[in-house]
Amino acid sequence: MRRLYHHTLLPTARKVRLALHEKRLEFAEYAIEPWRRDDDLLGLNPSGELPVLVDDNETVVCDHGAICEYLDEVYPEAPLFGRSPASRAEARRLAAWFDEKFFREVTLHLAGEKLTRRVSANAAPDSRALKAGRENIHTHLQYIAWLTERRSWLAGEHITVADLSAAANLSLVDYTGDVPWNDHPLTKEWYVRVKSRPSFRCLLKDTVPGVPAAAAYADLDF
Amino acid sequence: MRRLYHHTLLPTARKVRLALHEKRLEFAEYAIEPWRRDDDLLGLNPSGELPVLVDDNETVVCDHGAICEYLDEVYPEAPLFGRSPASRAEARRLAAWFDEKFFREVTLHLAGEKLTRRVSANAAPDSRALKAGRENIHTHLQYIAWLTERRSWLAGEHITVADLSAAANLSLVDYTGDVPWNDHPLTKEWYVRVKSRPSFRCLLKDTVPGVPAAAAYADLDF
Repeated sequence: MRRLYHHTLLPTARKVRLALHEKRLEFAEYAIEPWRRDDDLLGLNPSGELPVLVDDNETVVCDHGAICEYLDEVYPEAPLFGRSPASRAEARRLAAWFDEKFFREVTLHLAGEKLTRRVSANAAPDSRALKAGRENIHTHLQYIAWLTERRSWLAGEHITVADLSAAANLSLVDYTGDVPWNDHPLTKEWYVRVKSRPSFRCLLKDTVPGVPAAAAYADLDF
Repeated sequence: MRRLYHHTLLPTARKVRLALHEKRLEFAEYAIEPWRRDDDLLGLNPSGELPVLVDDNETVVCDHGAICEYLDEVYPEAPLFGRSPASRAEARRLAAWFDEKFFREVTLHLAGEKLTRRVSANAAPDSRALKAGRENIHTHLQYIAWLTERRSWLAGEHITVADLSAAANLSLVDYTGDVPWNDHPLTKEWYVRVKSRPSFRCLLKDTVPGVPAAAAYADLDF
């Protein structure tokens, strides 16, 4: 059976779960706390990082980017990157934008402080970090609106890893109700479309111990 | 004419230059200082990040990972990722290892302090960072040795982006003579092979203003 080692607080692992569900691939989930040493995980991935996929044929694939590329090569149904080299480059550019830039400027400051710090160290969030995250998020939400005014999905006419990366990060910030949706109606419209996909159900069921989800987190009509 | 916007102090930009040379693709180089706002760059890449490739047909490709994938799709001669999905996954895993883990644990502490801080802010290196970089580098050099004892190149029987990522980072640390080659003879053997390739000549000619290269930097018989 295909296995995924992941953790709900990692946006890159959320992205990979979305990718597996978009491709309708079954998998068993193993949640591992990324802040603890785990010898089983180190046996699969010497870097100790999540997510790790072990495919049906026991091929071990490490690194979220490598996993998405691998899935698209081996299971081409429901393509995650687009068809032409230019559209594939655009999907990869935007996936990196959300995996790295959005993560560093927003996710880390909001979900990192309110969820990961709380669960891993039982510590209170740093108020300066929260302020920075709340300021930084607007530019990104505007950029999503700008893109979706011009295209059906972030990278073009079809859903790609760009949408999955963006939605995976946003879903974590949304868990604590920190996405100012009402200020960004076009971005909200795009998120409603992603959130309504069957692939997204897995994320909406996730809970973080000790931190209840905001009322609208699992609500498709928020 | 194909154009690459880059900077010599960015290992990911060094990797892309190696990739273009491995594929024997001609390109004009434009060096941009990553610590200054550059409106031309922002016009090409709204994230403001380097490297950016503008291909012959004016396709703009942003993000070092996306550029390498694009080059391999459009110019398949001299493949940079390997043939099977599993070997491609292995090349991507290791490229991410050096682009992210090695960069964070080693390059940033050594080249970041001795070169980038000096050139961008005329500041002296932080001695604690240097100490951390000098300690961290050993595990990575051992891992390269472990891999090359089992394979011709880092990810398998052919040179891939994994070798280019590793060598691009190491070349920056080597510029100031901070790679303890004599403690890691197998890793040195692999690096001699990479360094001797025609693609590597471009890096060996690079200079950092105000910081002369260590004597062995451009020496193929160091």
